[in-house]
Amino acid sequence: MAIKEGLRPGGRSARVQESIHSAVRDLLQEQERSTLTVPQIAARAGVTPSTIYRRWGDLSALLADVALARMRPDSEPANTGTLRGDVLAWAEQYLDEMSSQPGRNMLRDVQSSTLPIYCATIIGGQLQAILDRYPDQPKPSVDRLINLVAAPTVFRILFSEAPLEVGELHRLIEIALSQ
Amino acid sequence: MAIKEGLRPGGRSARVQESIHSAVRDLLQEQERSTLTVPQIAARAGVTPSTIYRRWGDLSALLADVALARMRPDSEPANTGTLRGDVLAWAEQYLDEMSSQPGRNMLRDVQSSTLPIYCATIIGGQLQAILDRYPDQPKPSVDRLINLVAAPTVFRILFSEAPLEVGELHRLIEIALSQ
Repeated sequence: MAIKEGLRPGGRSARVQESIHSAVRDLLQEQERSTLTVPQIAARAGVTPSTIYRRWGDLSALLADVALARMRPDSEPANTGTLRGDVLAWAEQYLDEMSSQPGRNMLRDVQSSTLPIYCATIIGGQLQAILDRYPDQPKPSVDRLINLVAAPTVFRILFSEAPLEVGELHRLIEIALSQ
Repeated sequence: MAIKEGLRPGGRSARVQESIHSAVRDLLQEQERSTLTVPQIAARAGVTPSTIYRRWGDLSALLADVALARMRPDSEPANTGTLRGDVLAWAEQYLDEMSSQPGRNMLRDVQSSTLPIYCATIIGGQLQAILDRYPDQPKPSVDRLINLVAAPTVFRILFSEAPLEVGELHRLIEIALSQ
C-alpha cells in the first residue's frame, strides 16, 4: 500500500492527489468501472501513469482510496440533542449510503485492497463522536454499536437478498442502547 | 449464472460436476488461486474448457460454487441438548471457519459472483434447524440470530483489524437469547 499519509493540505502533493481523485470520480460518471484504466485516469488528471503507480501501486488501490475518501464524512454526525436520535440518524444515513450502488461499489473496492481495516476505524470515529456528546449517560461501547448496527447493515447488503429493514435497524439500536 | 439446479445425484452431469469441483480443490492445494485458469482445471478434471464455460460462465462463478459447496455443511449442527449450547457451538465453529484463510477466500469468491444471497440462506437453514429442536422455548428469530451473531463475525473479518473475540461472540449470543 503506497498511499502517502500526512500530505500537507494545499501542497503540491495534495493538489496532485485531488486532481487524480477527481479524474476517477468524473470517469466513473461516464463509463463502466470495469473499463477504467490507469493511463486514462492519468490523461484526465494531467499526470503521467507512473505518478499513479508510484503513489498507489495499482488501479484497485486507487479505486479503494477514492471510495474511502467518499465515505470519510465531511462533517460531524447530525446532532439531534439525544443519544438515541443521533444514533438513529447516523444508522439510517449509513444504511442509505451503503445500499446505494456507489456504496456497494465502495464495499467491494475497499475489500480488494489492503484498506478495509480503515472502514471500522472511520465508522468507529463517527460513533465515538456521538457517544462523546453524552458523557453522563449510560451507553454501549463503540465496538458494541458497530457489532449490533453497522455489521448487520453491511452483512445484509453483501450476503442477503434484501437490505436490512429500517424497522429491524431501529430494534437493533434499541437493543444496543438497552445493554 | 449458469449453474444447473436439481442435478440428478449420481447422474452423468453430477459426476462431471464433482470431478470439476475436485480438480479445483486439488489445484488450490498446489498453487496460488490467482494463477488458476479454466483450461488447467479442465485438463485436471478430464473435460473440455467449454464444458466449464457452458455450466459456470466464468472462473469466478466456478470458484464461488466450489466455495459454497464447501460451506454447505455435511451434517446437522451439533446437538448439545440446550438451545444456548447449540447456538454457541454453531457460532464458535462459524467464527473459526470464516476467519481461516479458506473461509476468507470463500467470502471474497462468493461476493464476486451472483451467489452471495445463498450465504444467508445456508446460514439461516442451519440456525433454523437448531431453533426447531426447542419448539417450547422462547427464542429469537433466525433473522435476529443472523444479525446479532453471524453479521458481526463476518463484518469484523472483512473490515476490521482483528476477528471478533470469542468473549464478545458469547455476549452477543446472550443478548440474542435474552430478547
